[in-house]
Amino acid sequence: MSAPVIAIDAMGGDFGPRCIVQAGLACLLKHPSLHLALVGQASLLKTLVAEELAAARLSVDSVRLRIVPATEVVGMDDKPTQVLRGKPDSSMRVALQLVRDSQAHACVSAGNTGALMALSRLLLGTLAGIDRPAMITAVPTDSGHCHLLDLGANVDCTAEHLYQFALMGAVAAEALGTVNPRVALLNIGVEEIKGCQQVKQAAVLLQQVEGLNYIGFIEGHGLYRGEADVVVCDGFVGNVLLKSSEGLAEMIGRRIETLFRQGLLARLAGLLAAPLLRGLQGEMAPAKLNGASFLGLQGIVIKSHGGASVEGLQSAIERAMQEIHENLPGRVRGRLEQLMGPEGHRS
Amino acid sequence: MSAPVIAIDAMGGDFGPRCIVQAGLACLLKHPSLHLALVGQASLLKTLVAEELAAARLSVDSVRLRIVPATEVVGMDDKPTQVLRGKPDSSMRVALQLVRDSQAHACVSAGNTGALMALSRLLLGTLAGIDRPAMITAVPTDSGHCHLLDLGANVDCTAEHLYQFALMGAVAAEALGTVNPRVALLNIGVEEIKGCQQVKQAAVLLQQVEGLNYIGFIEGHGLYRGEADVVVCDGFVGNVLLKSSEGLAEMIGRRIETLFRQGLLARLAGLLAAPLLRGLQGEMAPAKLNGASFLGLQGIVIKSHGGASVEGLQSAIERAMQEIHENLPGRVRGRLEQLMGPEGHRS
Repeated sequence: MSAPVIAIDAMGGDFGPRCIVQAGLACLLKHPSLHLALVGQASLLKTLVAEELAAARLSVDSVRLRIVPATEVVGMDDKPTQVLRGKPDSSMRVALQLVRDSQAHACVSAGNTGALMALSRLLLGTLAGIDRPAMITAVPTDSGHCHLLDLGANVDCTAEHLYQFALMGAVAAEALGTVNPRVALLNIGVEEIKGCQQVKQAAVLLQQVEGLNYIGFIEGHGLYRGEADVVVCDGFVGNVLLKSSEGLAEMIGRRIETLFRQGLLARLAGLLAAPLLRGLQGEMAPAKLNGASFLGLQGIVIKSHGGASVEGLQSAIERAMQEIHENLPGRVRGRLEQLMGPEGHRS
Repeated sequence: MSAPVIAIDAMGGDFGPRCIVQAGLACLLKHPSLHLALVGQASLLKTLVAEELAAARLSVDSVRLRIVPATEVVGMDDKPTQVLRGKPDSSMRVALQLVRDSQAHACVSAGNTGALMALSRLLLGTLAGIDRPAMITAVPTDSGHCHLLDLGANVDCTAEHLYQFALMGAVAAEALGTVNPRVALLNIGVEEIKGCQQVKQAAVLLQQVEGLNYIGFIEGHGLYRGEADVVVCDGFVGNVLLKSSEGLAEMIGRRIETLFRQGLLARLAGLLAAPLLRGLQGEMAPAKLNGASFLGLQGIVIKSHGGASVEGLQSAIERAMQEIHENLPGRVRGRLEQLMGPEGHRS
């Protein structure tokens, strides 16, 4: 494969373009084969790149770092429908067009999730048999991690959508290294009678898929115990699960800090424990650290957390590199055809 | 008020009647005014009570501990509809009948949640203006705790249901000591355009309620940061949030234990930190420790966690005592009339 080229929406996210430029430059330094296209307000980006390179006393080959101009910015509050109809020259749209036109292998954005999903569907299209792309990320568990989807791209899902998410999730987990991944539907109980209609109907659909290791329902604690490799839910539920987990992990971190400040003995324990606990806290904030991938598109799109740090953005760029290397959309397409039949319908 | 009488479904839950008998006896010892009615297979319960009392070399006034016979048991897998039509002499049903017939002030069960909800609605009825009761519990936050509802009684909710949950939650929080509680709808973003239709429509309804401190949408991390006193969602989402939080807290606990076993220095830190961390772990498992209360019924029903320990069951019985003391259903009814208007419709 030729050198990976990643288009970055340099205007999205809560932390602004400087943070994105820093993350991009850090990745270029770390990965000598990587090429980036920074998309956004050209003069601003040129200045930021020059400043950051000067501060670090570095230079970068202009072949490896292109700046692609785009005059508009998608706001975090913009409705997806407005973004589809208006803002033809937004950094997000131009970055996706680079992927559509085969000038980049992947797009990374920290911007408005709904807009990114809508534009991705419009410009790249979905795979055969997939109605809606889903967002997926890795969540830490007792036995390593599991892949959770959807994370918020689809707030209302039918049984058929959940079924499609399960197949896509299984294929992605396989492509990323899990052998015969165990696929489960997130539910409020493991008994067959539990849950809402969509989830129960999706279970019936999934039981019929030959070659899929569908293991049934899973509850929230089962997820963290590592009972499945792929956990499927609608985007509302997945988003709440991810953000509340992030919030709880942060709260526990703050409480531990407070605990270790109460009294001399506690301070001593805290001094000894601090490096151990710091490592743990990093692992517990998956949404912030790892990018979420859009699955089911004819192209690679990674959504970085809106409040991501330079480190989080770097990790999103690296996730894009991994998916390019694994040719994830191609593999998902091929395996979906096997599981669903060539017409994209259930066999 | 006369001495509180609590009817306990002694046959429900994963740990069996002995655990329930132990919890009941512990509460009788701790609270000298409390009266209990243990409902279930009479000969079994008599034996268990006798054994537990003998082992502890105790005796208890038969006025304070009645055994009420019921020959059937609701299984954890029974469908609510089956339980409504069949099993007329189940321990769960008989315990609720004691509340309906004013022979007990509250019912506590660790049994099948769906069946308990269906039987409670049938036997006790809902308050005027309330279509469906909701389950509520206290979740730890940075600033103390917040009240989260619904926790799984209602998997599909309309905007009107969410609106009713919000009002009930606000009134319950007030009754339990929070002044002018901040009420929020759980959503996948705080912007108005975010979320599914039901949540957006519920927001419109809640903005119109005079006397309600509705503060808008909240995300999962906002909940743990203590940004609201009452957080409202449908039962599927609430159940997933609670159980995944429980699972994450347990996983972090296990990781901390592992961390403190790696090397001599870590072991030393672990020895010093162990008592601090044990206290924290207790606080982080709200579902196991606290009972969840059914709100919106004409009576007090507390659901204890199915996998609750003796300690968890005790805490559910004590929650029932608190609600009896606060006359929670009466206060909710009165305040709902103020907020909704006397007919139970929105004013």
